[in-house]
Amino acid sequence: MIQFAEQIRRRGETIGLVPTMGALHEGHLSLIRAARRQTDTVVVSIFVNPLQFGVREDFARYPRNLSRDLALAKREGADVVFAPSREEMYPRGACAIVEVEGLSDQLEGALRPGHFRGVATVVAKLFNIVQPTIAYFGQKDYQQAVIIKRMVEDLHWPVRIDVLPTVRESDGLAMSSRNVYLSTVERRQAVALSQALKAAHEAIRGGERRAQALRRRMQAVMRQQALIRVQQIGIVDAATLTPVAQLKGRAAILVAAFVGTTRLIDNLLVDVT
Amino acid sequence: MIQFAEQIRRRGETIGLVPTMGALHEGHLSLIRAARRQTDTVVVSIFVNPLQFGVREDFARYPRNLSRDLALAKREGADVVFAPSREEMYPRGACAIVEVEGLSDQLEGALRPGHFRGVATVVAKLFNIVQPTIAYFGQKDYQQAVIIKRMVEDLHWPVRIDVLPTVRESDGLAMSSRNVYLSTVERRQAVALSQALKAAHEAIRGGERRAQALRRRMQAVMRQQALIRVQQIGIVDAATLTPVAQLKGRAAILVAAFVGTTRLIDNLLVDVT
Repeated sequence: MIQFAEQIRRRGETIGLVPTMGALHEGHLSLIRAARRQTDTVVVSIFVNPLQFGVREDFARYPRNLSRDLALAKREGADVVFAPSREEMYPRGACAIVEVEGLSDQLEGALRPGHFRGVATVVAKLFNIVQPTIAYFGQKDYQQAVIIKRMVEDLHWPVRIDVLPTVRESDGLAMSSRNVYLSTVERRQAVALSQALKAAHEAIRGGERRAQALRRRMQAVMRQQALIRVQQIGIVDAATLTPVAQLKGRAAILVAAFVGTTRLIDNLLVDVT
Repeated sequence: MIQFAEQIRRRGETIGLVPTMGALHEGHLSLIRAARRQTDTVVVSIFVNPLQFGVREDFARYPRNLSRDLALAKREGADVVFAPSREEMYPRGACAIVEVEGLSDQLEGALRPGHFRGVATVVAKLFNIVQPTIAYFGQKDYQQAVIIKRMVEDLHWPVRIDVLPTVRESDGLAMSSRNVYLSTVERRQAVALSQALKAAHEAIRGGERRAQALRRRMQAVMRQQALIRVQQIGIVDAATLTPVAQLKGRAAILVAAFVGTTRLIDNLLVDVT
């Protein structure tokens, strides 16, 4: 992969990287399509990264379907699917890590210790191997996108990071590889995450600026679904991820909730003048 | 610098990087000469990296002499001296770090907490900016070289690391930018570090394999100099840096000592069958 990437870069051509954990859905495909439009060679990486899963999380049962993913990536015009083994990515207990301090222990990072260190480390490896000109991430994992952007900026990686809008099911549920875990009734209730964000958005349009009031409104929406247990509602400055009491400028509203035993996340960016 | 590096890589040419903190001496120059022989474009970086200095260490008084360094680098055939400002390397409190866990808190790392995290982070930045084909390090900073090699391997950086032998003064003292701190009498006594290593080497040739016996012999040599205070003698596996009680295979013997108020280090690699 390194040699292939170097050949391309030597020709003065661009590489687009879409890093994924497989189980591709429309969200991933929208990233592949953007890469296809903007770069000469499109690489989709598929690697279920053990380092970003907590010990009680779903690493073992995370959906894996390489042949289906290959067909989808091919259909969207990807040139290469890079699907390394665990041993190739983490040879004999690799111990070098990349961490974006500060940004990584807030919000999602507080709930999933070590998660973003795992993400930053694997993305660093992928950047070194694939040498992308542009790497594509989804806004659904908003904190991840902020952290990767910061990593690239701070460590001067010669990569551009493009963050694309969350792709949603017709009822509003954010696309996620984990949606397959949901039972029929859970799937129906799961829409409450995006509905809660929509309710917050409407309140903001109506003039609401107090984070606490927005949080209460979101909780009210999700509380109507018996199978939902809200884990976190973060209302933060969009760049620094610092909690705000009063919306001002660009803010991010992030929600994490269990639907049955499945943990889902979603978020909304708002510009408040 | 990134654009310049990309132009060179696009021509299919190689870049040699000699990362330094300036105050160039014969050790650095031997690295520049190796880069000159082996690569198309030679980049010498000069940056006194604040992140690798402890709060009570010599960051403020570390020797700086850019015009002299530029002349020396030019004389040895360097094509570029890359001497960024602190603000360029660490923009607005950059918080992304690289760390090689395990290897970084042993030996020197135990005495200088955070030192190797600072080293790994700045070298990662330099690799991303300069995009070297080969990067050159001196064996004098042996633990640093092991950590950088491990960082490159674990994070799959497309860089070759060459570690070149320590260059010494005629009496055996390892070249170091910090040697300028020594008074005349300290300078005379400082040779005891390399003499202690030489004594250990002779003992090993004579059949000695016990780390404790070697350590005692080295201490006896250094104790003869009133201005020397031994801080650490490490006798370790050369690859893992794990202490060994009995020499076997490839081992490293590392010494750190204060000569007056100046901290110096030196080391010896031995192959024992």
